[in-house]
Amino acid sequence: MPAASATLARHHIAIELAERSYPIVIGTGLLDDAATWAEVPASSRAVIVTNTTVAPLYATRLGQTLSRYHKVVHTVALPDGEEHKNWQTLNLIFDALLRNACDRKTVLYALGGGVVGDMAGFAAASYMRGVPFVQVPTTLLAQVDSSVGGKTAINHPLGKNMIGAFYQPRLVVCDLDTLDTLPVRELSAGLAEVIKYGPIADMAFLDWLEKNIDALKARQSAALAHAVRRSCEIKAWIVGQDEREAGLRAILNFGHTFGHAIEAGLGYGRWLHGEAVGCGMVMALRLSHRLGLVDGAFVERVVALLGQAGLPIVAPALGVDRYLELMRVDKKAEAGETRFVVIERPGSAVVRTAPETLVREVIEHCCRPT
Amino acid sequence: MPAASATLARHHIAIELAERSYPIVIGTGLLDDAATWAEVPASSRAVIVTNTTVAPLYATRLGQTLSRYHKVVHTVALPDGEEHKNWQTLNLIFDALLRNACDRKTVLYALGGGVVGDMAGFAAASYMRGVPFVQVPTTLLAQVDSSVGGKTAINHPLGKNMIGAFYQPRLVVCDLDTLDTLPVRELSAGLAEVIKYGPIADMAFLDWLEKNIDALKARQSAALAHAVRRSCEIKAWIVGQDEREAGLRAILNFGHTFGHAIEAGLGYGRWLHGEAVGCGMVMALRLSHRLGLVDGAFVERVVALLGQAGLPIVAPALGVDRYLELMRVDKKAEAGETRFVVIERPGSAVVRTAPETLVREVIEHCCRPT
Repeated sequence: MPAASATLARHHIAIELAERSYPIVIGTGLLDDAATWAEVPASSRAVIVTNTTVAPLYATRLGQTLSRYHKVVHTVALPDGEEHKNWQTLNLIFDALLRNACDRKTVLYALGGGVVGDMAGFAAASYMRGVPFVQVPTTLLAQVDSSVGGKTAINHPLGKNMIGAFYQPRLVVCDLDTLDTLPVRELSAGLAEVIKYGPIADMAFLDWLEKNIDALKARQSAALAHAVRRSCEIKAWIVGQDEREAGLRAILNFGHTFGHAIEAGLGYGRWLHGEAVGCGMVMALRLSHRLGLVDGAFVERVVALLGQAGLPIVAPALGVDRYLELMRVDKKAEAGETRFVVIERPGSAVVRTAPETLVREVIEHCCRPT
Repeated sequence: MPAASATLARHHIAIELAERSYPIVIGTGLLDDAATWAEVPASSRAVIVTNTTVAPLYATRLGQTLSRYHKVVHTVALPDGEEHKNWQTLNLIFDALLRNACDRKTVLYALGGGVVGDMAGFAAASYMRGVPFVQVPTTLLAQVDSSVGGKTAINHPLGKNMIGAFYQPRLVVCDLDTLDTLPVRELSAGLAEVIKYGPIADMAFLDWLEKNIDALKARQSAALAHAVRRSCEIKAWIVGQDEREAGLRAILNFGHTFGHAIEAGLGYGRWLHGEAVGCGMVMALRLSHRLGLVDGAFVERVVALLGQAGLPIVAPALGVDRYLELMRVDKKAEAGETRFVVIERPGSAVVRTAPETLVREVIEHCCRPT
């Protein structure tokens, strides 16, 4: 892998948000390359927030590189998993920051997947009312989605990502080498968020994904590099237009209304976030079809790709009423009405309500073993 | 009181922060006057966040007025006191919001003192990554200081206000009538933050306070109205120049470095925040004098006024080392060095470090009964 990846160009994508703009750097060997981090705000102290799985793999290496820029680099390793994305775990970060007398200029580095990024980001947003932070995503899901765009949050027992902040990082560093150590199940979960960009925004990318799904599952560097790059480009374009999700940005939640209900209903951590979103996309696609927006062939095409990616495409049988109850607390809901991201035509999504009878039919259909 | 206060003009002060600008309305009878609230963002739902002391006094009245603008108005009454300004209490707000399926447009009203405002504000900043909120301060301290400027936070066992956000309200409503029910000790605590504006920004206001301290303690409407108005004007002017405390705004923390150490050292809630700040100002004044910035007569003049306001002017004997330890986690600290707001000349303050020997002498001096 290093030999092949050494030939890959380093790629920069800009998130354009006026004074909150920042670059995403995508490439290989970035963790060990001091030049990657040269633009990070100056501070004598830095804290790497990671988890107990990622820490032994990459924390020491990153810490060594960062010691070029920060006099003291502490590391906080959180327990691993979505079930720990709560206040108790967040408090471990605050405890470490305060115990080490970290000041307002301390830079936080989120080294890990989406859970680490969401928690380190919210900690950075709230510690002393805001300190700088850098995303260093080490999972495919985090590289293509959660590390980009400034959404940070923790879960509440009654709803996913209910407590958080819009808070932009100063830099996102996607070192593709870190995907080498990713468990197969996590790779598939990341592919769900990659595939998402096809139906909502870019049918040419969907075509490319269908042709390259085996290369991606085999972790071929060039394929992964293209998937991460194109995903980040699409996300950057959307976030640049609607940072705080007043409208357009909500389409990035395709599959997430159903998906969050699956995660909360099963108990956080049972399914990976990407698995729940993949299955949630199946449900949102079938809803789009029942609403008369897209034809059945298009739905089956995307469902097939999700299956090839190794994702579950049959929804867990939580019961229809429980799904409806869980979806009512979705952040897109307004005045008690659940709103869904649906595909209005291949390559384009909208947010809208749907008749409850249709939603019930979709849930029943999707929970049935095929 | 109503007869006299009916003659007071309603006063508007603007906080100028571009798209985050908002008005402070100061006057009497505001809680019951529907016109006060006409500009609040439209939403079918609203939640009044208050505490168990204030709820029986004003929550029903405010709820009735707000029912003109919101279909459903819920009330959450938190336990009263600084010792409850923590995550557990904050979670009571999130629980209520989620249990009542409150959406992203729900407006939060903070009805109470500084603790309620700080917690409701941080809840509004974080719930679904941000919902609109309105400050309805019912204590003098909250009306002249904490409700204005968008600082929100909760305490951490290792430091005061360590976890929070800069998050501006849409409106601040200071109904002077609510000060009628304020306990004497809380009135004095509020006067500490009023007196603060003199030495840091406005010596003419200090002159006025010396002449009117008895009228303020007697809660004469015209005196209270002027004190609230002038305090808000000064705070609005400072916050308008430096919303996120990059520089100037830090002078509003005059007395707070020592004061926070007193609060944390005694245990939150033992002294009121304003009491600790009042005593902290005595310490900061003596430090300013030892640094050779102001003469002893000026120091004694302000200390006398604080004493007349009914504030403690002898610091609790926590031990000098404990003070130094507690002050090291202050948000103004940089690279391990504690920084203090000191008076550089009457009416003007700066933030700077001070030699530890001087700080030690000041603490020892201020802890000695006079």
